[in-house]
Amino acid sequence: MSSSTSPALSVPSVDGGVLEGKNDDHGGVIVEMTNEPLDPVVYVSLLKASLSHWEQQGKRGIWIKIPIELANLVEPTVKEGFYFHHAEPKYLMLARWLPSTPNTLPANASHRVGIGAFVLNEKNEVLVVQEKSGKFRGTGVWKFPTGVVEEGEDICDAAVREVKEETGIDSKFLEILAFRQSHQSYFEKSDLFFVCMMQPLSEDIQPQEAEIEAAQWMPYEEYAAQPFVQKHELLRVISDTCLAKKNGSYSGFSPVPTTTGFSKKNAYLYVNT
Amino acid sequence: MSSSTSPALSVPSVDGGVLEGKNDDHGGVIVEMTNEPLDPVVYVSLLKASLSHWEQQGKRGIWIKIPIELANLVEPTVKEGFYFHHAEPKYLMLARWLPSTPNTLPANASHRVGIGAFVLNEKNEVLVVQEKSGKFRGTGVWKFPTGVVEEGEDICDAAVREVKEETGIDSKFLEILAFRQSHQSYFEKSDLFFVCMMQPLSEDIQPQEAEIEAAQWMPYEEYAAQPFVQKHELLRVISDTCLAKKNGSYSGFSPVPTTTGFSKKNAYLYVNT
Repeated sequence: MSSSTSPALSVPSVDGGVLEGKNDDHGGVIVEMTNEPLDPVVYVSLLKASLSHWEQQGKRGIWIKIPIELANLVEPTVKEGFYFHHAEPKYLMLARWLPSTPNTLPANASHRVGIGAFVLNEKNEVLVVQEKSGKFRGTGVWKFPTGVVEEGEDICDAAVREVKEETGIDSKFLEILAFRQSHQSYFEKSDLFFVCMMQPLSEDIQPQEAEIEAAQWMPYEEYAAQPFVQKHELLRVISDTCLAKKNGSYSGFSPVPTTTGFSKKNAYLYVNT
Repeated sequence: MSSSTSPALSVPSVDGGVLEGKNDDHGGVIVEMTNEPLDPVVYVSLLKASLSHWEQQGKRGIWIKIPIELANLVEPTVKEGFYFHHAEPKYLMLARWLPSTPNTLPANASHRVGIGAFVLNEKNEVLVVQEKSGKFRGTGVWKFPTGVVEEGEDICDAAVREVKEETGIDSKFLEILAFRQSHQSYFEKSDLFFVCMMQPLSEDIQPQEAEIEAAQWMPYEEYAAQPFVQKHELLRVISDTCLAKKNGSYSGFSPVPTTTGFSKKNAYLYVNT
């Protein structure tokens, strides 16, 4: 193959050309490949020239983001000394550390984050569901609505969303009562699970068709007395914590909106107020 | 290329053969490719045959884990309809959802987890450091020791490790005073940062050569009075929380070891005890 077979290039030509990248704040370079097809031979020439160029410039970490449409460039990138850093459905991020000093590039995301919602109404009834799939399917166990916090979503918003999705109930986030960290929850990843105290803002339950077999308001004592809850230490401690909260003798963490001042982005600090 | 050029196969032959996989708990199959070289043509035949086989069996999510040594198999896997699920330095995990129903495979890990350590001694002095790199380099700012929680590491252990690594001080984890969730902290990933109250078990500071410019015990009031702390709302709230804790008028979350009963694995529940 010669470079003339390459259909469309949004990068400089191979003659003395290098891949276009943005400098990051840590002495590194980030190259985001566009979706346009690129002849692997041309790519390798550009990559080799770029690496020499960056080395001369004293660059440290080099990031190359390859969209899934250009999966044919993954192997040549690995051959130039890059490793897999992280991936999302649409792209793979590869990295290479140029200096001879130890690699200080940040680690990949290590945790998934989930929530369980303790929604208690004024009659001391708790909102519980039975799931259509997963390990509790067909067991008759009633449990709190639970779910995964989505990318970029605040924990307090995720709890409101999951309660609404699974049961149709509107609710207000009050506080985090407790959280659990567990490991190897799927493949090598860890898990942080936040137990959220919620105040219901509506009454009528509409169970989610796809995931929820049944949903109801249940007297708290009945929920807590389930053998499934009593048998499992973790659930028992959570249940005791919820009971203490119900009785007014517990305080968890509430979200306080703050700006970091560095990035001017808003972020919630969860603290015992 | 013919299959006879393939050096070593730990998978069944192409004649009616399929890739070896393990069934998972959700009606899916996990295929872990070994490091041995595999002719891509042979691989594609096996993969096509396997997909037909799994479809007939009514399988749902198909996972293929490709070690970085076999990066040449990434493109053919994508061509068979797989997407990138997640990656670590040594491997890429691809996934494909076979049924016509919506894809319910779990999302990738979304959060990095970090700690900041509030180490207060009996003289009301707090352990602070100046860093050699990062945004505070050369600013003269004194800050708490901080660090990233490693894969599979408990938050309480990470705090002890980071304090020891950065300052040489032995310490005991007491409780989590607060935590912050922020988004887009690097690339698309989010960040959970836990402020940990620690009790020092030693006195003599040995700053870490590679990362720490200087470390010292500093009167708490002097730390809190730094313009850098006062200027940033987030740091001010954290500082106020630490002060409240110092004065005995605050309670955070302490780790309680529990077994889940499902997996028999230990996991810490962090709760206001």
